[in-house]
Amino acid sequence: MATEDGYDALSAETLGDRLAGVGRLEEHVGPDPSQWQVREVGDGNLNLVFIVEGPNGAAIVKQALPYVRLVGDSWPLPLYRAFYEYHALTRQAERDPGSVPEIYHFDEAQALIIMEFLSPHTILRRKLISGEKVDGLAERLGLFCARTAFRGSELSMASARKKADVGLFSGNVEIPAITEALVFTDPYFDAEMNNHTAGLAPVIATLRGDTRMKAKVQRMLMKFASNTETLLHGDLHSGSIMATGSETKIIDPEFVQYGPMGFDIGMLTANYLMAYFSQPAHRGGDLESYQEWLLEVIVGTFATFEAEFARLWREERTGMLYPAALFEDQGQPSDEARDAVLRNIWEDAMAICGIEMHRRCLSLAHNADFEEIEDAALRAPLEARNLMMGRDLILNAETIADTAALCDMARAYNGKDML
Amino acid sequence: MATEDGYDALSAETLGDRLAGVGRLEEHVGPDPSQWQVREVGDGNLNLVFIVEGPNGAAIVKQALPYVRLVGDSWPLPLYRAFYEYHALTRQAERDPGSVPEIYHFDEAQALIIMEFLSPHTILRRKLISGEKVDGLAERLGLFCARTAFRGSELSMASARKKADVGLFSGNVEIPAITEALVFTDPYFDAEMNNHTAGLAPVIATLRGDTRMKAKVQRMLMKFASNTETLLHGDLHSGSIMATGSETKIIDPEFVQYGPMGFDIGMLTANYLMAYFSQPAHRGGDLESYQEWLLEVIVGTFATFEAEFARLWREERTGMLYPAALFEDQGQPSDEARDAVLRNIWEDAMAICGIEMHRRCLSLAHNADFEEIEDAALRAPLEARNLMMGRDLILNAETIADTAALCDMARAYNGKDML
Repeated sequence: MATEDGYDALSAETLGDRLAGVGRLEEHVGPDPSQWQVREVGDGNLNLVFIVEGPNGAAIVKQALPYVRLVGDSWPLPLYRAFYEYHALTRQAERDPGSVPEIYHFDEAQALIIMEFLSPHTILRRKLISGEKVDGLAERLGLFCARTAFRGSELSMASARKKADVGLFSGNVEIPAITEALVFTDPYFDAEMNNHTAGLAPVIATLRGDTRMKAKVQRMLMKFASNTETLLHGDLHSGSIMATGSETKIIDPEFVQYGPMGFDIGMLTANYLMAYFSQPAHRGGDLESYQEWLLEVIVGTFATFEAEFARLWREERTGMLYPAALFEDQGQPSDEARDAVLRNIWEDAMAICGIEMHRRCLSLAHNADFEEIEDAALRAPLEARNLMMGRDLILNAETIADTAALCDMARAYNGKDML
Repeated sequence: MATEDGYDALSAETLGDRLAGVGRLEEHVGPDPSQWQVREVGDGNLNLVFIVEGPNGAAIVKQALPYVRLVGDSWPLPLYRAFYEYHALTRQAERDPGSVPEIYHFDEAQALIIMEFLSPHTILRRKLISGEKVDGLAERLGLFCARTAFRGSELSMASARKKADVGLFSGNVEIPAITEALVFTDPYFDAEMNNHTAGLAPVIATLRGDTRMKAKVQRMLMKFASNTETLLHGDLHSGSIMATGSETKIIDPEFVQYGPMGFDIGMLTANYLMAYFSQPAHRGGDLESYQEWLLEVIVGTFATFEAEFARLWREERTGMLYPAALFEDQGQPSDEARDAVLRNIWEDAMAICGIEMHRRCLSLAHNADFEEIEDAALRAPLEARNLMMGRDLILNAETIADTAALCDMARAYNGKDML
């Protein structure tokens, strides 16, 4: 697949020859490419991913394809997304050290990132389907969301630097367009690439007939598309998290863009809730205790987020927003102002959460939590609970008090027959 | 003031030689520069402005200075603002034909725009101080605000084009920084360049002691600095409007930036309200009727804005936001969704209005409506009404029902002794 610009997709066969001489790859894998074992393991929707192993260890080689892998070359997608992913990873590493894989090498022309091989980490979504717990998961993600949100905003950054960065990332158009369509729009009409479980028609009719809810979804789309509060991960679901029993790393920020501070934690929460609602098809005797653990993760994530955000507010509020000159320097606390900011993040997160719960059952890219339930007659009522709670979250984002209320809502839907 | 990049500030003496040969200037003024009469008339805060007259007619030559004229060369300001002003003017002309002066010529290196000389137009602020009425003022500004807001947003524009434009304007850092400081921050602490009328100390203490209000102001700053809903004029006060008795034009968009759709109309409303509160020092017997006319202008501006926004929503909603696929194509009206968007614009406008009413009495750049009241003992109580109503607007933006309620509020403050 050589192109005029010199881009050429790697294969397991060509990788050794192509990447021979990349010093940091040799350092981590071994100096002799003939000793490298190369496996293509990309199970995502967009890219080639290779594990390269050798006498010194292993590394990941991730290369963008010029189209959406899930769909094929009928849906072209620019290679420059690797450039944005690289810049996202370096910023995340700086803002929350240790949260993302270490970068060894970036080749812009080949749309290729060579990075740390995380082992024995596996994708969090697989763990949640298998009923495995991860110690420290809530704390790790709460810190990640708080630190990237705060340190990427004008609460912390100098405005000129932040605005230059907004300019840089404004070139990434096609990737946000995927989110804009698949997440915010397609679920709510009969879009071409949609698919859904048989039996959901009455619930879908309810969602599509609810103009007030759809208006709120479009309001969130407007915020998502025209709000540069902070640099988002942009796709923070349980498939973008790798974990062992006790260590968690965040991967795959190619959907990076500037957006509202509540976006990442809202999407993440949706993925925990979808894991929660799908559990009855995956668990036996430990169903209730595992579901409760998932809710504890949500509670813990927000608790950590808010505590860390408050710490950063106190210790690192060096940007132009909410300056100390207006509060502390006049002998006045800024706690109420901070809590109002946190409340806005919470409300945005709740609405985003509901929208993500919809799109994963209704538009193109479903998630394995539900998708691997083979019996549609079992899957549909579980998805229906998820969909109707999503609607509730979108409609009532402004009145849900806190994570305790959110968890009570989940427990209530978990017992309901929505079909 | 020649610089290494070839920029050289014009003077009335050098202009003829420097601009000889600029075809469109010769066309509008006359082919022989020795017959040109040149007057420097810049009374604003930032630029050189020349009127060039000759046998064929006249033209305006506007040139940016590399510093803030109001303050001096201790406050440098990049020349590239002329580039952004030029791009703002061309977009405004396209989105609301006839609303802005025609551009004849742009020279980026000289930071220079040659444009239509508006005659016999005068600055609207002067008219409001003199008690002159302008027919069609509300309609003209309502249309301008609605058309630029709607047609510059993703309600109308293709997302890729709009995002590229956000990238272009993200290079304009120093000009928004002036607004961020002077408008949103300086009024609320003892900033170096602040000045205020003697006697206002108790009101200022009330404002600076109100942490809830200051938090709301900072929330609006966050929206202003990190919200790219549409391309704003950015400085739409009564000094940026030129009018005859029956024709109105909008000038000086060098504070152009992407921002919230309610910003321009909110700032404009504040300037009408400041004209309103200052009138007792400028009028005699016709005071009440002229003040009521000012309120009618506010009512008419919003009525036109909302009607035009609704028309554009119906006829030009071609962007990705609130697509017909989710409403009309499913046989469902989008009126409720549109009204929610308009309500958000209104609430943002009310908060911005209150903030503008504060900064014009408290930070660097005061407005002539109050400033020309020579007797501080007369000026202070009028400014106090304005400041206290500004606070009311910021605190209660979400509960003010409509323009009728806004006008009632103005009438109530107009009779109050706030000191």
